Amino acid sequence: MAPSADAEAYPIVLSGHSFPTKAVVNASVLHGKLDLRLETRNIEEPSAGELQIQVRSTGICGSDVSYYKKFANGDLCACAPLSLGHESSGVVVSVGPCVNGFKVGERVALEVGIPCGQCTICRKGRYNLCKRMKFRSSAKSIPHFQGTLQDRINHPAIWCHKIPDHVSFDAAALLEPLSVAIHSLNRAAPTPGSTAVVIGAGTVGLLVAAMARQSGCTFVTILDRDAGRVEYAVEKGFATHGFVVPQTLHSSSSSSSIFTDGTSTPASCDGIMTPLSAYSNVSDRLEGAKALAADVLAVARPDMVTLDEDEDDGVDVTFECTGKEPCMQTALYATKPGGKVIMVGMGTPIQTVPLSAAQLREVDILGIFRYANTYQTGIRLLGGKGPMKLPSLDDMVTHKFKGLGNAKEAFELAGRTVDDEGKLVLKVVIEA
Amino acid sequence: MAPSADAEAYPIVLSGHSFPTKAVVNASVLHGKLDLRLETRNIEEPSAGELQIQVRSTGICGSDVSYYKKFANGDLCACAPLSLGHESSGVVVSVGPCVNGFKVGERVALEVGIPCGQCTICRKGRYNLCKRMKFRSSAKSIPHFQGTLQDRINHPAIWCHKIPDHVSFDAAALLEPLSVAIHSLNRAAPTPGSTAVVIGAGTVGLLVAAMARQSGCTFVTILDRDAGRVEYAVEKGFATHGFVVPQTLHSSSSSSSIFTDGTSTPASCDGIMTPLSAYSNVSDRLEGAKALAADVLAVARPDMVTLDEDEDDGVDVTFECTGKEPCMQTALYATKPGGKVIMVGMGTPIQTVPLSAAQLREVDILGIFRYANTYQTGIRLLGGKGPMKLPSLDDMVTHKFKGLGNAKEAFELAGRTVDDEGKLVLKVVIEA
Amino acid sequence: MAPSADAEAYPIVLSGHSFPTKAVVNASVLHGKLDLRLETRNIEEPSAGELQIQVRSTGICGSDVSYYKKFANGDLCACAPLSLGHESSGVVVSVGPCVNGFKVGERVALEVGIPCGQCTICRKGRYNLCKRMKFRSSAKSIPHFQGTLQDRINHPAIWCHKIPDHVSFDAAALLEPLSVAIHSLNRAAPTPGSTAVVIGAGTVGLLVAAMARQSGCTFVTILDRDAGRVEYAVEKGFATHGFVVPQTLHSSSSSSSIFTDGTSTPASCDGIMTPLSAYSNVSDRLEGAKALAADVLAVARPDMVTLDEDEDDGVDVTFECTGKEPCMQTALYATKPGGKVIMVGMGTPIQTVPLSAAQLREVDILGIFRYANTYQTGIRLLGGKGPMKLPSLDDMVTHKFKGLGNAKEAFELAGRTVDDEGKLVLKVVIEA
Amino acid sequence: MAPSADAEAYPIVLSGHSFPTKAVVNASVLHGKLDLRLETRNIEEPSAGELQIQVRSTGICGSDVSYYKKFANGDLCACAPLSLGHESSGVVVSVGPCVNGFKVGERVALEVGIPCGQCTICRKGRYNLCKRMKFRSSAKSIPHFQGTLQDRINHPAIWCHKIPDHVSFDAAALLEPLSVAIHSLNRAAPTPGSTAVVIGAGTVGLLVAAMARQSGCTFVTILDRDAGRVEYAVEKGFATHGFVVPQTLHSSSSSSSIFTDGTSTPASCDGIMTPLSAYSNVSDRLEGAKALAADVLAVARPDMVTLDEDEDDGVDVTFECTGKEPCMQTALYATKPGGKVIMVGMGTPIQTVPLSAAQLREVDILGIFRYANTYQTGIRLLGGKGPMKLPSLDDMVTHKFKGLGNAKEAFELAGRTVDDEGKLVLKVVIEA
Repeated sequence: MAPSADAEAYPIVLSGHSFPTKAVVNASVLHGKLDLRLETRNIEEPSAGELQIQVRSTGICGSDVSYYKKFANGDLCACAPLSLGHESSGVVVSVGPCVNGFKVGERVALEVGIPCGQCTICRKGRYNLCKRMKFRSSAKSIPHFQGTLQDRINHPAIWCHKIPDHVSFDAAALLEPLSVAIHSLNRAAPTPGSTAVVIGAGTVGLLVAAMARQSGCTFVTILDRDAGRVEYAVEKGFATHGFVVPQTLHSSSSSSSIFTDGTSTPASCDGIMTPLSAYSNVSDRLEGAKALAADVLAVARPDMVTLDEDEDDGVDVTFECTGKEPCMQTALYATKPGGKVIMVGMGTPIQTVPLSAAQLREVDILGIFRYANTYQTGIRLLGGKGPMKLPSLDDMVTHKFKGLGNAKEAFELAGRTVDDEGKLVLKVVIEA
Repeated sequence: MAPSADAEAYPIVLSGHSFPTKAVVNASVLHGKLDLRLETRNIEEPSAGELQIQVRSTGICGSDVSYYKKFANGDLCACAPLSLGHESSGVVVSVGPCVNGFKVGERVALEVGIPCGQCTICRKGRYNLCKRMKFRSSAKSIPHFQGTLQDRINHPAIWCHKIPDHVSFDAAALLEPLSVAIHSLNRAAPTPGSTAVVIGAGTVGLLVAAMARQSGCTFVTILDRDAGRVEYAVEKGFATHGFVVPQTLHSSSSSSSIFTDGTSTPASCDGIMTPLSAYSNVSDRLEGAKALAADVLAVARPDMVTLDEDEDDGVDVTFECTGKEPCMQTALYATKPGGKVIMVGMGTPIQTVPLSAAQLREVDILGIFRYANTYQTGIRLLGGKGPMKLPSLDDMVTHKFKGLGNAKEAFELAGRTVDDEGKLVLKVVIEA
Repeated sequence: MAPSADAEAYPIVLSGHSFPTKAVVNASVLHGKLDLRLETRNIEEPSAGELQIQVRSTGICGSDVSYYKKFANGDLCACAPLSLGHESSGVVVSVGPCVNGFKVGERVALEVGIPCGQCTICRKGRYNLCKRMKFRSSAKSIPHFQGTLQDRINHPAIWCHKIPDHVSFDAAALLEPLSVAIHSLNRAAPTPGSTAVVIGAGTVGLLVAAMARQSGCTFVTILDRDAGRVEYAVEKGFATHGFVVPQTLHSSSSSSSIFTDGTSTPASCDGIMTPLSAYSNVSDRLEGAKALAADVLAVARPDMVTLDEDEDDGVDVTFECTGKEPCMQTALYATKPGGKVIMVGMGTPIQTVPLSAAQLREVDILGIFRYANTYQTGIRLLGGKGPMKLPSLDDMVTHKFKGLGNAKEAFELAGRTVDDEGKLVLKVVIEA
Repeated sequence: MAPSADAEAYPIVLSGHSFPTKAVVNASVLHGKLDLRLETRNIEEPSAGELQIQVRSTGICGSDVSYYKKFANGDLCACAPLSLGHESSGVVVSVGPCVNGFKVGERVALEVGIPCGQCTICRKGRYNLCKRMKFRSSAKSIPHFQGTLQDRINHPAIWCHKIPDHVSFDAAALLEPLSVAIHSLNRAAPTPGSTAVVIGAGTVGLLVAAMARQSGCTFVTILDRDAGRVEYAVEKGFATHGFVVPQTLHSSSSSSSIFTDGTSTPASCDGIMTPLSAYSNVSDRLEGAKALAADVLAVARPDMVTLDEDEDDGVDVTFECTGKEPCMQTALYATKPGGKVIMVGMGTPIQTVPLSAAQLREVDILGIFRYANTYQTGIRLLGGKGPMKLPSLDDMVTHKFKGLGNAKEAFELAGRTVDDEGKLVLKVVIEA
């Protein structure tokens, strides 16, 4: 394997079998809305089965931004100080008792959801659905399970995954959102040569699109209202085709833009799909969703030229990555009989949707909640080579902040779609 | 094999290789709302690939009743005279050219949906989703494809299924709704020992429950507001447990009744689940659905006594057989993480549902549209023996009318849930 | 739930929260071929996560008999004293630290294979394939993981499954072989209305047949050279049809016997399928297997009367439960295109088989190694009621021995197919 | 879409709705071993549902070469004159009655296996298993269904697939072997990030490897004794890694060569795997297969560096594309617990294999017989773009012969692995 390009990035001096561990570490802690503080915490020696990890990179996720802004995420309200961060990688600095197979100095990605490992659903391998799951930086379990925006944390060794030399800490941190995408594709299980639509071109949408290509989908069309993101997705090879949702929906395909060649028709506006939401009644909204689906399919099924009109229209799989009702409606119409809609984005919990459009055409609706058994796959994918390689995860990191002291600034930026220079904001990372 | 109990029922005199075929047949034809007429029609000799079938039994389905009452079924409006009937069996009276394997006098069940056989989805085996499907007694294709309430009809031989001697014409006609149930179970694909809830105890709900048991579900709980139907379902062995939806929902389990022993707490009222619909706002309705789901599960998971509270609650599969929004909501709450909700009943096309309850727990939502590749299975199941036998389909025929001239009376009765004597109306059949 | 019929069987006096635990227990220990001794052993208090179980019933398996006779099982040779027994149930007598949800006095079935719970395949839910699995009474891991033929043992709480009152200790012990059958059906995943053949009518074959029926197979034909076992299988409802393999194979169907009505043509001889093995060359043997398959199918596909000759012949699934080469050959020929052969029985490791018969007809060959995630299912199945109930596991226990002191006698009998009175030997159980 | 690079290739003059059709065509007809003649045949107007196709390109398959050399293919002996060729494309020159959606001049790929479309297995979508299948150039059906080495043939329109402008006739002809590869991957259904081994680097092996990559396998290692083919596979991007089977097997990895960088250690010799077959007894052969599997895995699992030794060894899927016994043995050992072996190559019908290695580790063995529902997928894949594009099918055509008169020369060459100049022979095509 090639020598690591990242070698400089972690000039750690190994001292015997264990790093010198100091008992006090810095932590970025959220105490309330926008109230982010840099504090010190005591850290114990790692317990049996645990590693102590020096955190090197943490990506900021939408849920982190939500906690930062509202001290809550959807229905979950934080009730005590909470360190954020769950997309994370680092270096082993201490090895607890009863741990096999790890050495100080090894580089790892952290899988931050710890299931019980003992209940029925854990034993069946769907541990992401474990009721006793503790997930770092989430307010669900009480006391809250603290996130990775700390100098060092103790973490169960079996949920630390070694990464090869050529994978950077940032890319390793992004294994977390990549895991969502892998899980989405595991559930979608497209046959080779399938067609796909991905609604929403944020970090998860982009990664889902890339994984759809990786999994054998020939035509992957990504959809967003932000032309810059769509353009980015097609140029960088995440998707094969792009579609910019027009501002006025009735004008149909005239105002939509196809990005297969990377050319763009900027259509900047906030909130994907607000045009559809603007309709005053359900039936108008559904007509709008249906028309949008038809426009999308004109792009998403370039193979239809050799098929006759009674053939299956629609794509094999639609990945809904926004969690918005109009997007879900569009997804149901855009998918072909016998196809699948994968609910990836978490958003509006209660939605009004044309269930008969799913039932009469046997379009399966499958939801995604986090991921299970994805990290080894992700690590293998990052080690792939040649034409089938994933787009670079490192390139997705558009902004980096050095040190926990800059966390506030990082959160502010992560809540935006473009920075002050008008540059796209995709993934903001905090380096320790 | 036992001598046919039905031997008397078809005393057909074979004359050479072909029955004498008269060119004029009687047909029951609907010309508008409630305007059902007995008419004569000319019938051609069967074309290449066709059989001429003397219809012996036709069951009346809910969609037939809808056409009879409204000259429409959901969105589909009839625009020309239409013979109803699509649950049907009969005897071969003439064999067209190019037909192999059939003889005059053979008894058959008719599969009345004729797919194109050539499009992509037909070739993949999911022919129920064929866009060019013609379905007897449906107003969808124009000219309408006529139903089986005629003395004789010509039908493609490959969609006629021979039935063994011991299967009656009525049971053979009921292979059609049984096919919906078989298809539902094929899609649900429960592992042995699964738990199931079936919402709605009409013909299809009962058959779905029976098929769930047949397919290895250990506990199958059926749910209806009509205590009589629930009692029937449990007594006759369609379901293992029953639950009567109480009239006032907030009183919770106190007013619900369990029918594992066939005892009943009658709670007659029309419209399943109207109590839930009565709530004025969505969130109250969802709370009601959640409470109802909890009450149902207390019955549907008798095995929970040996499991601890953090174990999977909910059933593995819920079959929603009413098409109503509150039932769909209840279905989503009653199903366990990683489970499935099967949409069997066709009803409200646009529904407001707690999609997050499906997504966060990865409850798959799968719709059923008619059936494909089910008739051979159904025929085998009717030939089953011993303890695993299906409940008798013949016993499900609660009312029979002799002759097409009595069709009007039959449709009137089929639209009711009890007859004048207060006896349960399940399946009304018209014998030719 | 009904009061336990088994209540007398375990008159345990509860004393406070914990049974008085004596430090010395009796154990039946095998020191070499036929060298079974009753000894005493010291037992520790249960460690963290463990329960101490008073063993109440242990069934004897074929592998136990093999160790008893040869101090080896297939390739595995014991290298130290070994307690046998892995089909087992008992009562909790002491609860170790960090155990939740268990109380002294509760009745449990033991799942005796302990996987690591941490490797990739464990986390994916297929823990039966864990490389670090320790399995009681097997010589595979060193030091050997001791079997349950001891008064009391300490066992991890998460591998103890509570059983309801109405399930006897013997039935609970038989959850182990039932688990093999459940796993076989989980892998076979037959659609409802499938047809199945089961080769071999020993304990596992019988349970596989019963589970096939339970899982929706309409016609389940069991095959053995021992007419008594075939007769038992059909009479007790394990299978719907039976087929006795004739002694001289060329005489074909003339000498085979069908047991759908429980009538028999005794054909007692030892070693299933030896007639096929007797052929001197491969091609004769394969012709024999093909002829046998044809004869079996004449029984196993009673539905063929209504299907034409070009239709699919063969059954949907064949369960090979003997591990013998001629049986595997027959299985491949008896299965229809697109069907499955499930390798359940462990036997000849290297076999000469007509792989092209599988390939050209896309007959999938799936092997079974023990089981995973089956105990909860098994417990639910034992709690089933009404027509779909499993045949009684208690009735399968044909012989019981009381006390570890009688183990030798039990092993001797378990190695035979009939006892001194000529009565069928199915399952021999040792009660503590 | 880009203007067709192939536009010159078919300068057809359209005359009204139909090409002038001459009643006499040239055909290349095999009358016995090596007895290939150029003859004339009469051709009828296309019947109802048929198209008349001017054949433009026919690829020569191994089965064609077998008929040419032996007038037989495996067990199938030709009993009458037979035109060979079944990998084929052409232009519509006449449209029969009752055909919709086709025009004269359209370019099509021929799917040359015609199933009955009516039996149970056809209706289930697995039409490749239809017992009444007629397959062009195969001697199975009598009278033989003639192959495509004719100027023009009549073919059912529903088995003609329109190809886009940018797909050449040669590539369209290769959709046939590509279909085998697509079907193999449909059956293997690897999850994204899987690892694969492909045994045999002939046309089918190469295409299977390419499809494995396309379907999300990250590491795809191809195996052959011919270093040139392995080198070709890796250089052209069919596989990510290559492994040349050494001549002397016991020397293990020392003499094997890895081709991830396209460098080669030529090891030319005829007959893949003969070293293994050379062992005099079964157990030595199996030891050899086991050692070979271990050597292959050292290449095929580059991700093992970050996994510990108790982790799953072996690859997720092994595609056996040679049909040879030692290869099948190696495949079983090279596949990890819970993985799959796909039997793609047809070869030795009866094999001696370590079935216990499959059973104890639950390695599924799935066979491939031709393909079903693959052509639309193949056409979509050829239209793919960017990094995920398949390697060029046109480049796989190493030798072209113009005109049916040169067929004999073409067959002679197709039976070799290198031509007179020492250049690799992969696919030989005859252009009409």
